Amino acid sequence: MAEKKVGKDLLKKTKLGIDVKKEENYSEWYSQVITKAEMIEYYDVSGCYVLRPWSYSIWEFIQNFFDAEIKKLGVKNCYFPMFVSQAALEREKTHVSDFAPEVAWVTKAGDTEMAEPIAIRPTSETVMYPSFAKWCQSHRDLPIKLNQWCNVVRWEFKHPTPFLRSREFLWQEGHTAYEAPAEAEDEVLTILDLYSRIYTDLLAIPVVKGRKTEKEKFAGGDFTTTVEAYVPVNGRGIQGGTSHHLGQNFSKMFNISFEHPDKPGQREFAWQNSWGLSTRTIGAMVMIHGDDGGLVLPPRVALIQIVLVPVGITVKTSAEDKQKLLDKVKEISEELKSSGKLRVECDLRDNVTPGWKFNHWEIKGVPIRLEIGPRDLAKEQALAVIRYTGEKRPVELANLSETLKDLLEKIQQDMYERNEKIRDEHMKICLNWNEFLPLLNQKMILLSPFCGRPQCETLIKEQSTREEQGEQAGTSLMGAKTLCIPLDQPRDVPLPEKCIQPECTEKAKFFALFGRSY
Amino acid sequence: MAEKKVGKDLLKKTKLGIDVKKEENYSEWYSQVITKAEMIEYYDVSGCYVLRPWSYSIWEFIQNFFDAEIKKLGVKNCYFPMFVSQAALEREKTHVSDFAPEVAWVTKAGDTEMAEPIAIRPTSETVMYPSFAKWCQSHRDLPIKLNQWCNVVRWEFKHPTPFLRSREFLWQEGHTAYEAPAEAEDEVLTILDLYSRIYTDLLAIPVVKGRKTEKEKFAGGDFTTTVEAYVPVNGRGIQGGTSHHLGQNFSKMFNISFEHPDKPGQREFAWQNSWGLSTRTIGAMVMIHGDDGGLVLPPRVALIQIVLVPVGITVKTSAEDKQKLLDKVKEISEELKSSGKLRVECDLRDNVTPGWKFNHWEIKGVPIRLEIGPRDLAKEQALAVIRYTGEKRPVELANLSETLKDLLEKIQQDMYERNEKIRDEHMKICLNWNEFLPLLNQKMILLSPFCGRPQCETLIKEQSTREEQGEQAGTSLMGAKTLCIPLDQPRDVPLPEKCIQPECTEKAKFFALFGRSY
Repeated sequence: MAEKKVGKDLLKKTKLGIDVKKEENYSEWYSQVITKAEMIEYYDVSGCYVLRPWSYSIWEFIQNFFDAEIKKLGVKNCYFPMFVSQAALEREKTHVSDFAPEVAWVTKAGDTEMAEPIAIRPTSETVMYPSFAKWCQSHRDLPIKLNQWCNVVRWEFKHPTPFLRSREFLWQEGHTAYEAPAEAEDEVLTILDLYSRIYTDLLAIPVVKGRKTEKEKFAGGDFTTTVEAYVPVNGRGIQGGTSHHLGQNFSKMFNISFEHPDKPGQREFAWQNSWGLSTRTIGAMVMIHGDDGGLVLPPRVALIQIVLVPVGITVKTSAEDKQKLLDKVKEISEELKSSGKLRVECDLRDNVTPGWKFNHWEIKGVPIRLEIGPRDLAKEQALAVIRYTGEKRPVELANLSETLKDLLEKIQQDMYERNEKIRDEHMKICLNWNEFLPLLNQKMILLSPFCGRPQCETLIKEQSTREEQGEQAGTSLMGAKTLCIPLDQPRDVPLPEKCIQPECTEKAKFFALFGRSY
Repeated sequence: MAEKKVGKDLLKKTKLGIDVKKEENYSEWYSQVITKAEMIEYYDVSGCYVLRPWSYSIWEFIQNFFDAEIKKLGVKNCYFPMFVSQAALEREKTHVSDFAPEVAWVTKAGDTEMAEPIAIRPTSETVMYPSFAKWCQSHRDLPIKLNQWCNVVRWEFKHPTPFLRSREFLWQEGHTAYEAPAEAEDEVLTILDLYSRIYTDLLAIPVVKGRKTEKEKFAGGDFTTTVEAYVPVNGRGIQGGTSHHLGQNFSKMFNISFEHPDKPGQREFAWQNSWGLSTRTIGAMVMIHGDDGGLVLPPRVALIQIVLVPVGITVKTSAEDKQKLLDKVKEISEELKSSGKLRVECDLRDNVTPGWKFNHWEIKGVPIRLEIGPRDLAKEQALAVIRYTGEKRPVELANLSETLKDLLEKIQQDMYERNEKIRDEHMKICLNWNEFLPLLNQKMILLSPFCGRPQCETLIKEQSTREEQGEQAGTSLMGAKTLCIPLDQPRDVPLPEKCIQPECTEKAKFFALFGRSY
């Protein structure tokens, strides 16, 4: 305990600790966590951030999982240029109108003005589909299934936030073309399942799978599916990844067509999908799992799953005993790395105290800290401290790698379940408009009957905007929008006749999930 | 043979074959190979190209190898923004003067003119090093070892060529900072070795490791090391990857410094390296291994190593026998994939002839084609056709996956050795200036004594520029520059006193490797 105290004091002095509580000021808390956990470095171009190895490694875990899964589906990786000619960009009007205000334009090379400005991709539909048109001559050329891992640029003028809203971000974008709509629609959901697994299985975050409403869907597509997560600290929903069925809208604009296999001379247009998941995933993970001590990493995406810290060395410890301890800690570390295939770091620095180390690795969110001191060794054990609960439990050195592997799996599972419980407690069925705003203000996301019309959604958003009282009078809290129309509709409550919006005279078509959102 | 003929005719008709010889017009040949092998699709922004899965997969093999190797060295992946402020870009003057004419500038977002233009990275020294300065406070913060896989933009105005010179390209760039120069210098060579292995072990291309001369080194660095390959068809050298020691030049400009561990109060500047290898590797591979039939892939970077083609089905073949054959081919394919971990494709299309398939996979450079017909099956064998030699050899079906694995290894080895032999025959020691130009014109690269001075190198370049005669009178063939100063200097020939440049009065310092180059 003395060590811990010294560490805390030192941290305070060196400003390494998180000095604000998540519940009290989550925006400041977020900023401190991502910088002090060494995930992000701020940068001198507004809205752009440095992804340091501690956050980029999470992206690599996501890449490894997703890349292997889509390759099993026959999707192949490729790389298309980041530049788009104005003509190509503007080919699909609905689509471009959505992105145009945020497009960055290159107009100069060296000292030379370009003949015409060139856009940087905000997404690659208009980059890729002229090539698709060339490649698609016969139905035998289909399906085309491509994916790329790349950067995209959306020069937003809203307040930027690292991971959650940045002007350049990393993502994967899949683009496919099929002969028949059913195949394409199947794929939309197959990919949505993979996105869901990234959240549930890797990031330990529950998500709701659903369709976007007309208002919220991807411009130029037929329908959009999404996975939506819940952020407890502010009660907001966050879109986790979207898989779009584009129908024939783009194939008609770009002439991606083939001769009907049974009707010679008749051209058919391909059925297309596009789907993307970005580094926003990392921001969602920070917001959802982080606590007052800093980042909390689910074991499956932790670059370091276990950190070993030697403890119990005092001024009375002989040099020989100290060396013996350090050697043993190193030995255990090597054993865990090799036999257990665990991702292990051994923190043997002698210029900082164990307490300082505890706090350092706590801020960085390492799932398990293993403290090993002379007294532990005498008992053939070590002390495992679990990051997400703070729980301490002695573990025997015999079979240590198996014990820790099981413990990591249990942590992963528990983190998911704890979050699912919190999410479930904050996802309520709301059938009565009078309860809508009060529940929203209790950080709820709400399943309510909805007619599905954009104008009705606009009204709900306006009417659920909360005017702040007291000190923050004059500022307003955002209104609710639909997060999605869940694929799994509520089973226990029948769909009421009427849409939740009080002035709406249309019938409810489904339960939609409403919430304030990112 | 009849099948082959039909295929060739069809290819001619559908323009799928390569219709120009490599030796006769290698620039047209190159363009046909990369498009017809489905590596590249042309694009409507000049100097930008689509990397299709057939070429991107080669990049993925290179990534997998190199990424694993640098992680063993403790290098971690990260991602820095693609945008650079003008101020940061211009901090290191020598450096920026090299890139300035090719920098692309973003000046507009949506309809809004930016307050000041923002550059797109041509390389990331000036993007990364302000962060390095923040992270480096104590010698304990060193070494910093980072790498990123990303796109960069160099808006060249010279004639662009896919892979070899494009305005946007993909690469990895490693950036490291050390406390002591010796550690940094060691790393420069460790990375150079990895670059060398990418060429020799993966791409089956011999390279010469060396240092760049003063004239050719990276601007702003202390010294540059390089791997240089030889392209037989035009006798040019091609730079394969460079590993730079930056010394303290950038650390002084960006203030990447730390307190001397033994002299309190004294600031020391870090010693830095940067190293990069790009998708140019793929272009070199195409130029070096490709032949009149199209692409030739070394087995280790072939997405498909073996293609199975059923043959010998005629109008007389019964439906039952045909099905039996196809089932057997599928069975063999599955067996090769699972037991042998081989990358296998089974071409069962029934709308094209076997001859068409032969040519299709030949253009794409698949290392082994396995023809299987009823007569082969009766003999419990198949016919393996080796892409790079055209050799046909019957292989027994028993132990097929082992046989093919060995054969692929042998092909990989043979391709390397054949190329090494050709390269060695075209790398001559030249001690006499009178022989210099004639040897260059015989597509040689030359090891000649050199004083190392930039002005002498400029003279050699001018004096070795060949004026074309006859039809092409007025055009000139580029002069020779130094490819590198080989780390392994010639052993059998002592270094002459005099530099090769006839008017030079300085002593020769080393043998430099001269050549026309990409």
